[in-house]
Amino acid sequence: MSITRGFTSHPAGSVLVEFGQTRVMCTASVEQGVPRWRKGSGLGWLTAEYAMLPAATHDRSRRESVKGKVSGRTQEISRLVGRSLRAAIDLSALGENTIALDCDVLQADGGTRTAAITGAYVALADAVTWLQSAGSVSGNPLTGHVAAISVGVIDGEVRLDLPYEEDSRAEVDLNIVGFDGGKLVEVQGTAEGEPFDRDAMSAMLDLGQKGIEELIAEQKRALDAPYPGELPSPVQR
Amino acid sequence: MSITRGFTSHPAGSVLVEFGQTRVMCTASVEQGVPRWRKGSGLGWLTAEYAMLPAATHDRSRRESVKGKVSGRTQEISRLVGRSLRAAIDLSALGENTIALDCDVLQADGGTRTAAITGAYVALADAVTWLQSAGSVSGNPLTGHVAAISVGVIDGEVRLDLPYEEDSRAEVDLNIVGFDGGKLVEVQGTAEGEPFDRDAMSAMLDLGQKGIEELIAEQKRALDAPYPGELPSPVQR
Amino acid sequence: MSITRGFTSHPAGSVLVEFGQTRVMCTASVEQGVPRWRKGSGLGWLTAEYAMLPAATHDRSRRESVKGKVSGRTQEISRLVGRSLRAAIDLSALGENTIALDCDVLQADGGTRTAAITGAYVALADAVTWLQSAGSVSGNPLTGHVAAISVGVIDGEVRLDLPYEEDSRAEVDLNIVGFDGGKLVEVQGTAEGEPFDRDAMSAMLDLGQKGIEELIAEQKRALDAPYPGELPSPVQR
Amino acid sequence: MSITRGFTSHPAGSVLVEFGQTRVMCTASVEQGVPRWRKGSGLGWLTAEYAMLPAATHDRSRRESVKGKVSGRTQEISRLVGRSLRAAIDLSALGENTIALDCDVLQADGGTRTAAITGAYVALADAVTWLQSAGSVSGNPLTGHVAAISVGVIDGEVRLDLPYEEDSRAEVDLNIVGFDGGKLVEVQGTAEGEPFDRDAMSAMLDLGQKGIEELIAEQKRALDAPYPGELPSPVQR
Amino acid sequence: MSITRGFTSHPAGSVLVEFGQTRVMCTASVEQGVPRWRKGSGLGWLTAEYAMLPAATHDRSRRESVKGKVSGRTQEISRLVGRSLRAAIDLSALGENTIALDCDVLQADGGTRTAAITGAYVALADAVTWLQSAGSVSGNPLTGHVAAISVGVIDGEVRLDLPYEEDSRAEVDLNIVGFDGGKLVEVQGTAEGEPFDRDAMSAMLDLGQKGIEELIAEQKRALDAPYPGELPSPVQR
Amino acid sequence: MSITRGFTSHPAGSVLVEFGQTRVMCTASVEQGVPRWRKGSGLGWLTAEYAMLPAATHDRSRRESVKGKVSGRTQEISRLVGRSLRAAIDLSALGENTIALDCDVLQADGGTRTAAITGAYVALADAVTWLQSAGSVSGNPLTGHVAAISVGVIDGEVRLDLPYEEDSRAEVDLNIVGFDGGKLVEVQGTAEGEPFDRDAMSAMLDLGQKGIEELIAEQKRALDAPYPGELPSPVQR
Repeated sequence: MSITRGFTSHPAGSVLVEFGQTRVMCTASVEQGVPRWRKGSGLGWLTAEYAMLPAATHDRSRRESVKGKVSGRTQEISRLVGRSLRAAIDLSALGENTIALDCDVLQADGGTRTAAITGAYVALADAVTWLQSAGSVSGNPLTGHVAAISVGVIDGEVRLDLPYEEDSRAEVDLNIVGFDGGKLVEVQGTAEGEPFDRDAMSAMLDLGQKGIEELIAEQKRALDAPYPGELPSPVQR
Repeated sequence: MSITRGFTSHPAGSVLVEFGQTRVMCTASVEQGVPRWRKGSGLGWLTAEYAMLPAATHDRSRRESVKGKVSGRTQEISRLVGRSLRAAIDLSALGENTIALDCDVLQADGGTRTAAITGAYVALADAVTWLQSAGSVSGNPLTGHVAAISVGVIDGEVRLDLPYEEDSRAEVDLNIVGFDGGKLVEVQGTAEGEPFDRDAMSAMLDLGQKGIEELIAEQKRALDAPYPGELPSPVQR
Repeated sequence: MSITRGFTSHPAGSVLVEFGQTRVMCTASVEQGVPRWRKGSGLGWLTAEYAMLPAATHDRSRRESVKGKVSGRTQEISRLVGRSLRAAIDLSALGENTIALDCDVLQADGGTRTAAITGAYVALADAVTWLQSAGSVSGNPLTGHVAAISVGVIDGEVRLDLPYEEDSRAEVDLNIVGFDGGKLVEVQGTAEGEPFDRDAMSAMLDLGQKGIEELIAEQKRALDAPYPGELPSPVQR
Repeated sequence: MSITRGFTSHPAGSVLVEFGQTRVMCTASVEQGVPRWRKGSGLGWLTAEYAMLPAATHDRSRRESVKGKVSGRTQEISRLVGRSLRAAIDLSALGENTIALDCDVLQADGGTRTAAITGAYVALADAVTWLQSAGSVSGNPLTGHVAAISVGVIDGEVRLDLPYEEDSRAEVDLNIVGFDGGKLVEVQGTAEGEPFDRDAMSAMLDLGQKGIEELIAEQKRALDAPYPGELPSPVQR
Repeated sequence: MSITRGFTSHPAGSVLVEFGQTRVMCTASVEQGVPRWRKGSGLGWLTAEYAMLPAATHDRSRRESVKGKVSGRTQEISRLVGRSLRAAIDLSALGENTIALDCDVLQADGGTRTAAITGAYVALADAVTWLQSAGSVSGNPLTGHVAAISVGVIDGEVRLDLPYEEDSRAEVDLNIVGFDGGKLVEVQGTAEGEPFDRDAMSAMLDLGQKGIEELIAEQKRALDAPYPGELPSPVQR
Repeated sequence: MSITRGFTSHPAGSVLVEFGQTRVMCTASVEQGVPRWRKGSGLGWLTAEYAMLPAATHDRSRRESVKGKVSGRTQEISRLVGRSLRAAIDLSALGENTIALDCDVLQADGGTRTAAITGAYVALADAVTWLQSAGSVSGNPLTGHVAAISVGVIDGEVRLDLPYEEDSRAEVDLNIVGFDGGKLVEVQGTAEGEPFDRDAMSAMLDLGQKGIEELIAEQKRALDAPYPGELPSPVQR
C-alpha cells in the first residue's frame, strides 16, 4: 500500500493511492462559497464523486458519460465516499467553502471504494492545509483520521482486502469505514452466497478494525512528510 | 404492522405492507423466460425496483420519470431490495423464469426500505406459488424467509423502526436484512452525527435480530391464511 | 364506482377512486407560492401528472423513471388532466398558491384517464378546503364540479366506460370531460378502426353526458360526508 | 391555402403546404421492411413526427434536440398525425413497407397540426404512387382522402382556422380530422376559457366538416396535376 | 448558387441558400439582453445551431430530438458556424443584444456546413439592419463579409463544392471560412483515405479562396437588392 | 516531453504521455470481433474517446457523466482522435478485431488533444504487437507513425505547443496531425481574434511539421525500448 501526495498540481489536494494493483487518483478541489441553498448558513460543504476509467478493469467497460447515465454502483460509492469524508470534517469550522473530492480509478483490482476513501482523506487534509495557509480557514475543521478497508470471507477464512479474483468468489463482503481509536463511521456487509452469522460478523469487524489502524498509521506517515514540490496554487472561482 | 395479500389482482403477487404510517405496495410480476444474456443457462432471474410516489412524503417530491433520472438513493435501495430477495431464492430451482419485484411507497414515515423488503418477500412467495400452480416450477425455490428492519440510536437509546421525525435525528441508522434462524443477509450501518463503537453495534444487532424474528412470524401468519379472493391469472408475455 | 377520501394522510387532498377494476390514487399537494415566472401576478397555479405503476397492467410495463423518459401517452394524459382541472378553478381566487395533482394508477382496467380526472376533482376540492381552513384562500376558487367519462362503440352499440378487454376492440373511443349542468370542457374522439359519422358522435355525447351527471352526483355524495379521520396538516415549503 | 408537390427531391413524397402564414414541409420517406416486432406479419407500418423549427414562431423557441427532450405538445401532435394518416391507409395492402411522415413547421401562424395532416396526406399519396411504380405495392392501399381543420369560437362566433393572434384568444378550439363524405377520424375540442355547450359543438362540427370538404377538393386538384419535375428515386435501405 | 432573403417572416433575418441540390434555411432571431453570465458587460452574444431535417438526406435519418441527443457531427458543425459568424461581428458594437442563428438543412447534397455559414452571414446582416432600424444598435457591428466553401481532391484533381456522391469518394476534404480580401477564419482539412502533402494543401487553398471571393460577391448582390416584402417585425422577449 | 509505456497493466496498450504540465493517459483495449453492422466484412474497427478528469484543469469542471451529456468539445476531440488514428491503421490487415482507444487527461495545460493523439499512437502500436503475439493478427496493420502538434501565433510570433496561459491569448490556433515523411492527416486552424493570411498559415505549417518529425522520433525511441515489465494479458470478451 502506498500514498503519493502532490500527484497532480492544480487541485489543492491530489493523491495517488495504491493498494496492490488497485490505483486511485483522489483530488480535493477547493471553491470559495457554497451552493445557493446553503448560502448564509456559515457552514461549508463537501461533495464526492467516484468513477472508473473505461480501461481500469480487465475488460474495458463503457464510459458513463457516453452512456449518458451514471450506474447505480457508481452513485452508491460516490454517496458512500461523501458520507465517510463528511464524518471527518466539521462543516462549521470549514466556513462557507466547498471541497469537491474526485476519486478516479486508474486501475482496478478489488477494494476500489475503500482505497478511494483512504486516499481521499489525505487529499482532504492537504486541501484543509491549503485553505489554512490561504487564510480562508482559521481553526482545524478535521475531526480525526478516516480510513476504510474491505474484509472478506473466502473458503471460510476471514481475510483483508482481497484482490479482484478472490473478491469475486468471496462468501461475504464487508466494507468498514472508521476513525483512529476504533470508532465506526460505516459498516456495510453483504452475503454474496450463503448468509452469515454474528460470529463471522464479529471476526470480520475485529480484523477490519486492525486494518484500519494500520491504514491510518500510513496516512499519518504520508502527511507528516514534507509536501513534495511546490504547494498547489489553484485558481479559485 | 400489517400485511395485506392480493392487494391488486393483475400481478402474481401483490402485497400492501404497513409499518406505522409507512405504506408500501409490493408486487411480484412473473414473466416466462430470462434476459438474453442468461438464456440457456437454466437459471431464473429476479429484479427489483423501489420508488416513491411524489406525494408519499410530507413535502411533495419531484417525480423521477419527469426529471428523467433516478436518484442515487432510489437506485441504492432498488439494488438492496434485489440483493436481499435474491438471497431468498434458488435461481436454478426457479428455472428460466423472471420475477420482477416493484416496491412503490404510497406513504412514507421512516423505514420504507425495510418495509419494502419485508413485503416483497410475501409477494415473492405468492408468485412462487402461482408459478408452481401454473406448472412452471416444480420444486420449492425459496430458501427461507427474509425480512428487514431498521434500528436507530436516539438520545443514546437503541430503538426499532423509528418514524420519520425521530429517524431524521437518529445518531446511528442500521438496516438489517436477515433470515429466520438468525443468519444475516445485509447489514448497513451509518453514523449520522457521531461515530459509533462496537458495543452500540452489538446492541443494535441484538435488538434488530429480535425484530426480524417477529416480522418473519408475521409473514408466516399472512402466508398461512387462505388467499383473499381469486388467485391472479396474469397474462404472460 | 367508489371514491375514498383521506386515502393517505400527508397531502392536502388524497383520494382513491375505483371504476370497476381500475384504481387510481389522486393526490393534491399544496405549496405556498407559484413558479418564478408567475410571481407577483396574484394568480395561483395548478399542475397535474398522471402515471401508471409498472404492475398496474396485465403485463408489467417498464418503469418510466428507469427508461429515463416519459412516454407520449403519459404526457398526453397529464396535460389533459391539468387542462381539465384548471377549468374547475379560478386561479385568481386561488391566490399565489400552487396545487400539484398526482394521479397514479395502481390497477388498470380501461378508463384510467377519466377515472383520474374524476378523482382528482375530489382531491382538489379537499385541498381547497384545506387552504381555506389554513387561511390561505378566502373565497371559493372552485367554479363547478368536473368529471370525465369514456364512451365506446362496440359491435355497433354505444356503451359507457368499457373494461380493458372490450376497450381494446372498441370501434370508436370518446373521452368527455364536463361540468355539472351539461357544459363541456374537453371532447376527444378517435376512430380506432372505421371512421364514425355525426349520428354516432351525438349518441356518444348523449350517453356520456348522462354518465357525467351520475359521476358528479357521486362526487357530491363523497364530499358531503364528513372527512374520514383527522384533516391532513402537510408541511408547506 | 396552397399545396406544392415535389418540394424537395429525396423523399418519395415531399409537399409544402401553406395555410395563410403557416407553412409546413411534409415528407413521406419509404423504407423496405417493417420494424422487427412486425416482421412476417404481412402488414406495413406508418409513423409520423411533427416538429417546429426554432424560428418558426414569433419568439424563437429552444430546439428540442438541444434540450434533449421532446415536449408533450410535440409528442401529442406527432401521435395525432400518425393516427390520422393510419386511418387513410390499409396496412395489409401496403405490405411489409414502412412509410415515415415528417411534418416540419417552417413558419407558424395557427393551425399547424391541421395543416400538417392535410399536407401529409398528399405526401403519403405520392409515396404510395412511388411504391406502386417501383413494383413494391400492387393494389391501392389508400382508403380515402383525409384532411384536418381547426375551428374556433371567438367573440361568440364560430370561425375556421384562426391565425395565431386570434387563436390565442379563442374560447373554444376544435380540431377535426375527417374523410371525404363526412366520416370523422378524430375530434378534439378544448374549452380555453369558458366551457361550451352541445349547440356550440354542433355548429363547430358543421362548419368544420364543410371546411374539410374544401380541403379535400384542394388535395385532389393538387394530386391530379402532373408531378412537377422528375419523380424522386430515393435510395432505400 | 442562389440566396433568397425574407424566406420566412418572423425572424429578423431569414434566408434560403441553395448550392446545387443543397438547400439550407438560415434564420437570425434577435432577442434583447444577453445570457445571465454576460449581463452588464456591454457585450452582445451570438449563438448558432445547425441541424438536418430527417428527410434531407437520401436515406431518412433519425430525428435528433427523438433520439434525445445531438450527434457529434451536429455539435461540431454548430460550433463551427458559431465561431465563423462571431468572427464577422464586433460584439461590443452589438451591445447587449443576442442573435441566434439557426441553419436547418431542408435538402442535403454535399457542402451543407459551408452553405449554412454563407447563408447565415446574409441572415445576420439583415438582423443587424433590423436592430439598427429599431434603434437598438447605433454603429455597424459587422466587421466584413464571411463565406465558406468546401474543396475536395477527387481522382487527384482539386475541385470546388462536390455534390454528395462525389464528396463521399473524395480523397481530401477541406472546408475554408474566409473574409473578403483573402483573410482566413477557419481551415479544416481531413484526409479521407490517403494523407496529403503541402502542395495539395496549397492548391486547395488557392482554389477555395477564389471560390470565397465569388460567394461574397453573391452575398453582396443579394444584400444590395431591396428587401423582398415587408421588413419583419419580430416580437422581442 | 516524455512517453511512458505500460503505465497500467490491464489494457493491451497503456501509455502516459507528458507535454510540459499536460499529462494524458492513453490506453488501447482489444476486443475480438467487431460491431454487429461490420460482421463478416473481414475489416477491423477502431474507436476513440477523449475525456478530461474533473480536476485536470485549474478550475474543477463538472463531470460529464454526472451532467448526463458529453460536451461538444469532448465529442469533437474524440472524433478527431478516432479519425487520426484510423489513418494509421489498415483495417483489413487488422481483421475482425476492435481496438478502443481511451485518452483521459489527468492534468491539462494546453495541447491536450495533440498529446492524446501522439500518445494514443504508441498505445495502438503496443496493442498491435499484443494482437500479433496472440496470433490474432498476422501482418502489420500499421501504415506509418502518426503524431500531432499544435501551433499558435502569439504576439505575432509563430510558436509550438503553447501552455494554457499563452494558448488562451493566442491569435491563431492550428492543430496538425501528420505522418513521418511530411504527409498530413488533419489540419485545423482557427482565428481566435483577428483572421490570418496565407503567409501565417504557411509559417505555422512549416514549424508544425518540424515538430511532428521530432515527436515521431520520440515515439520511435519509446517503442524501440524493451517493454517495461510483463506484457499485459487482457481478458478478452
